[in-house]
Amino acid sequence: MPELSERVKSTFASPFRKFLPLAQEAKARGTKVIHLNIGQPDFLMPKGSLDGIAEDYLKFIPYGDAEGQMPLRKSWCEYYKKFGVSLSAEELMITSGASEAIYFTLMSIADPGDEIIVPEPFYANYNGFCQMAGVEIVSLFSSIEDGFPIPDIEAFEKAISPRTKAILLSNPNNPSGKVYSLDMLNSLADLVKRHNLFLLVDEAYSEFVYEGFEFNSALTLTGLEHNVVVIDSISKRFNACGVRVGAISSRNTDLLHHVARYARLRLSPPMLGQTFATHALKLPDEYHVHLREDFAERRATILRRLDQLENVLYHAPEGAFYLFVKLPIDDSDKFCAWLLTDFSFQGKTVMLSPGTGFYATPGKGKDEVRIAYILEKDALDEAMDCLANALTTYPGLRLNPSYSLV
Amino acid sequence: MPELSERVKSTFASPFRKFLPLAQEAKARGTKVIHLNIGQPDFLMPKGSLDGIAEDYLKFIPYGDAEGQMPLRKSWCEYYKKFGVSLSAEELMITSGASEAIYFTLMSIADPGDEIIVPEPFYANYNGFCQMAGVEIVSLFSSIEDGFPIPDIEAFEKAISPRTKAILLSNPNNPSGKVYSLDMLNSLADLVKRHNLFLLVDEAYSEFVYEGFEFNSALTLTGLEHNVVVIDSISKRFNACGVRVGAISSRNTDLLHHVARYARLRLSPPMLGQTFATHALKLPDEYHVHLREDFAERRATILRRLDQLENVLYHAPEGAFYLFVKLPIDDSDKFCAWLLTDFSFQGKTVMLSPGTGFYATPGKGKDEVRIAYILEKDALDEAMDCLANALTTYPGLRLNPSYSLV
Repeated sequence: MPELSERVKSTFASPFRKFLPLAQEAKARGTKVIHLNIGQPDFLMPKGSLDGIAEDYLKFIPYGDAEGQMPLRKSWCEYYKKFGVSLSAEELMITSGASEAIYFTLMSIADPGDEIIVPEPFYANYNGFCQMAGVEIVSLFSSIEDGFPIPDIEAFEKAISPRTKAILLSNPNNPSGKVYSLDMLNSLADLVKRHNLFLLVDEAYSEFVYEGFEFNSALTLTGLEHNVVVIDSISKRFNACGVRVGAISSRNTDLLHHVARYARLRLSPPMLGQTFATHALKLPDEYHVHLREDFAERRATILRRLDQLENVLYHAPEGAFYLFVKLPIDDSDKFCAWLLTDFSFQGKTVMLSPGTGFYATPGKGKDEVRIAYILEKDALDEAMDCLANALTTYPGLRLNPSYSLV
Repeated sequence: MPELSERVKSTFASPFRKFLPLAQEAKARGTKVIHLNIGQPDFLMPKGSLDGIAEDYLKFIPYGDAEGQMPLRKSWCEYYKKFGVSLSAEELMITSGASEAIYFTLMSIADPGDEIIVPEPFYANYNGFCQMAGVEIVSLFSSIEDGFPIPDIEAFEKAISPRTKAILLSNPNNPSGKVYSLDMLNSLADLVKRHNLFLLVDEAYSEFVYEGFEFNSALTLTGLEHNVVVIDSISKRFNACGVRVGAISSRNTDLLHHVARYARLRLSPPMLGQTFATHALKLPDEYHVHLREDFAERRATILRRLDQLENVLYHAPEGAFYLFVKLPIDDSDKFCAWLLTDFSFQGKTVMLSPGTGFYATPGKGKDEVRIAYILEKDALDEAMDCLANALTTYPGLRLNPSYSLV
């Protein structure tokens, strides 16, 4: 048998999906698996947003522009005005999901061996995209015990080397739920300018910020026209994760022209999803007002249930819809697998994402899991019943007296 | 301004699209541009193939399986039976177009510096995907003067080095229109088995084979279960290039399990396109019978028109819908750009793909262009009127006495 490549053999395994075969086996045994492992909410997509498809594609479905269809680019820029962002369609290009946006951006700003600074914990698949691109992640650790503070500027400064090309953040942060303050963004702005770096900000969750917190897009920072690149996605915004439509925005149009070279190789982003996105972005804001209210309720449900558990530690999310939780367990990979292979409570179990994948520092996240609170209240309650029971029966329980709620 | 990566600066420019800005300028000047630069036929897609979308996505559009939706994988395998291919759904995974299929496969079978042998001319974007993956193309030249013979086994054998990982073909070939005989495929089968290589075959055009020629899928070769990987696409098959749905098929399921690691990073292929594909693949074969008849007419139109030109050389396509043509010109890049910037005939011009991008050997294809005969007869005639006129007025005409029709 011909040998596979070394790189594929060592490719990062996505923590959201690596245990899916175990989940399928559990379902085959008759266990109901409640999926809190992936950010796929069960809310309705906006009404009427699929209507355009039959109108747009009467005859055939052609290749589109490599950078995305102009009507979509324009409607996305129009939509951004609600965040105080003024952008022209030439400053925004469409990708096959935020995943492709991140990968193409990495390929365009960094060569193999170059470094990207990323505060930990971070969206796990950054690990995989950096690995594919041969780019090193230099991570800045922040602890759940301290409530995931954003590392201070000195820590970023210290992490910069001659091979550093960018700082990469998600704001609001997946998985920590932190929202970057304007002050913090301004300090980072100053830093990237002084060191001539890119500032990549993944803003896929910008609609989801809870009371008392405020989202500021990196595209509103002034004097950073050459440095700021914003990654975005239709997925979470409109409960349409499967359309695979994302975007890269930057006032550095030279960068976008270069990214377009990769885009041209794969010809065009998916057209049907682009039609959906064009329509969805034009709908009134009420849709998101309701989504935010519903997420606030789900967040309250899950926090209330976590507060009833002992030896569990979390920081209440300020944005997005994830909770990173420290549990009294030996190993989150083992625990998440065990939930699917050996555990059930009243015929049900819960699928979670193990915490290790969200760190680059080895050993970190070993007693942490990510919970996506993306289902309606009853399902969340059932899932938390399972978790509560699992935390009394899991053979690898490890009590740590230092645990307390923050 | 932060520096871009070296790799993006040297990224291969897709010959199908690199002159699009010039085409836009021509259109802005009021010139009608007839696009024969890209394989985007104007035939209707199958009736009813969009109907499933409204039914499938009543509530929201979720992430799908990283390897594609099971109903689509099953209907693709069922469809393959018409080519004598018997495959299980676990042996076929879905990708975002054939582009992603090729890239993920390259990443999974070759490390940076490894080599892939590709007969020339070849689908131009292979250059770009290999470059992105750091894989070297070792090309085997075959000349238009000889009618693009497929290189003989000795030539392949000589090109194999310790770093060779695979032989990559497209069958039917884009751009040469050659169709591989079963004998040739069997010789290659023997070769890859002896040298423990992968045989990657891009079969995106398997529906399009002209009278007198026969398509044989590499998936019908016996004893090659570990070696054969077939790349495919919905695009050309159903005039739905914009759905971005492709596939990787192999009986080497260990390879597919590894490819799935990359697939999981980008979460899932586009769902709306998958619904389209699932329905389209189930439709009766009549659709393709008609398509083939129509393409045969278009082929006849373009061959007739080429035969009226002097100092033009081509080999009649056996499959697909491209013609690679040698013209009496100094430089095909200059010529294709000039058609858009300086030329018009009766208010029209034609956009073609310059030949250089279809070779890895420097200097090859300099007086060749690719014509995609994807439009209806009148448009093809208009385009050929333009070409005929351009070949009397282009300032870089170079007559070569050795030209003759083959």
